[in-house]
Amino acid sequence: MASTKTYAARAEGYANPAARSLLELMDRKKTNLCVSVDVTRKSSLLRIIDAVGPSVCLVKTHIDIIEDFDEDLVSQLQHLSSKHDFLIFEDRKFADIGNTVALQYSRGVHRIASWSHITNAHPVPGPGIITGLASIGQPLGRGLLLLAEMSSAGTLAAGAYTSAAIDMARAHRDFVIGFIAMKRFDGQEDFLILTPGVGLDVKGDGMGQQYRTPREVILDRGCDVIIVGRGIYGKGEGSDDDVIKAQAERYREEGWKAYLERTGQNIV
Amino acid sequence: MASTKTYAARAEGYANPAARSLLELMDRKKTNLCVSVDVTRKSSLLRIIDAVGPSVCLVKTHIDIIEDFDEDLVSQLQHLSSKHDFLIFEDRKFADIGNTVALQYSRGVHRIASWSHITNAHPVPGPGIITGLASIGQPLGRGLLLLAEMSSAGTLAAGAYTSAAIDMARAHRDFVIGFIAMKRFDGQEDFLILTPGVGLDVKGDGMGQQYRTPREVILDRGCDVIIVGRGIYGKGEGSDDDVIKAQAERYREEGWKAYLERTGQNIV
Repeated sequence: MASTKTYAARAEGYANPAARSLLELMDRKKTNLCVSVDVTRKSSLLRIIDAVGPSVCLVKTHIDIIEDFDEDLVSQLQHLSSKHDFLIFEDRKFADIGNTVALQYSRGVHRIASWSHITNAHPVPGPGIITGLASIGQPLGRGLLLLAEMSSAGTLAAGAYTSAAIDMARAHRDFVIGFIAMKRFDGQEDFLILTPGVGLDVKGDGMGQQYRTPREVILDRGCDVIIVGRGIYGKGEGSDDDVIKAQAERYREEGWKAYLERTGQNIV
Repeated sequence: MASTKTYAARAEGYANPAARSLLELMDRKKTNLCVSVDVTRKSSLLRIIDAVGPSVCLVKTHIDIIEDFDEDLVSQLQHLSSKHDFLIFEDRKFADIGNTVALQYSRGVHRIASWSHITNAHPVPGPGIITGLASIGQPLGRGLLLLAEMSSAGTLAAGAYTSAAIDMARAHRDFVIGFIAMKRFDGQEDFLILTPGVGLDVKGDGMGQQYRTPREVILDRGCDVIIVGRGIYGKGEGSDDDVIKAQAERYREEGWKAYLERTGQNIV
């Protein structure tokens, strides 16, 4: 049962380089926190990432909302990834047919596959979306998450849809490393579960987003990574660095405590 | 019944400016052809669009695959739209929560809402995706298509998922003007049905895409717009202009003939 094993022990079971690196660094840095940064300016993005860097295993981006995106942003992002030892997860939510997603992943202004260790896709187009993305990402050692569930109100990613997503992932274990989901699913395979909609102080955003605590997500639901956004970096272009650092540590500690309890390790 | 009425008669029933403009120009230009252009160079994109322009009601883009995208590309796209009298449909397939899609639609390098008359979204996140996109697109007179079905093999957009998409559209008729779908659905409301996977000479692309003829799509299935890609502009960066023009006319004629038959108009 994946949820009672340590991240370090699970790393050994993964052939996919991105999954393996992620689990190893989670163990090394003692963090299951992913910060989702949704600002629109390059300078704010880099500043916030530098501030949360020491506390996170993963930084989640929406590169297509950055107004002044350029090649230098990619270089700086890669530099911060090395400096603070985290992976980059472009939350692209690919959702087209295989031929199109292969182009969207590799080409265009953003060239996502060249810098994003992990990305995600909706299973709705059918298995061709995995084949298309794998044709680009697998030779680069990238990993893919399927959106099996969503945190937004009224989502159609439920029931038979979620089951179909799991079946698609099982058939492509070399590239699909896990899911965006609200809970761990039963099954033999070890998949990573990354969970959005995590907050300690809020309940919703007025646009359908719903929140749960790190403890609920990691301990009660058996998920692996908590994804937190404005709960950490605040409104607008982000709070002051010291506030962001403190909030990131607060979430990291909550998430890690829940993980130690789940895996039966001593809490110091 | 929408499928037996003329495009001109249906235009009058739409309050949404993008839907109304599209139906009026389809009638005026005698075309229900949308060309989907999936090349990765700005010069090829503009050349192909200029060649197909006289034959189409709509040009479908994937702006995020263009390697040398810049502001000038948007200007030239808008110029061609005026020159040849067609609308622009960025096939973004938005698929995130409301707050995120609002940013993806309005911001970033591509600023899609500023130039794309029509865009599309997956219903999977729930109704918040429509609210988020409408907050940006409605003040600009834009229209949204929901992906109720897909043309790819093994798609999960079927059955209860498709029904839920239709219900979501019914609840937002001022902004949701229709569907990406493989057939017309029963119902009182007049929705536009745009159908991908149309080809006269091929059956599949090896990555899960499946094809039907214009006659099957317009006459037998009651759809409104046929979406055709490489069947018109050929391989790589596209065939020669005269070949592209001839193919576009061939598809336009096939699509229009099927529409005339469906609406009981005389075929000259």
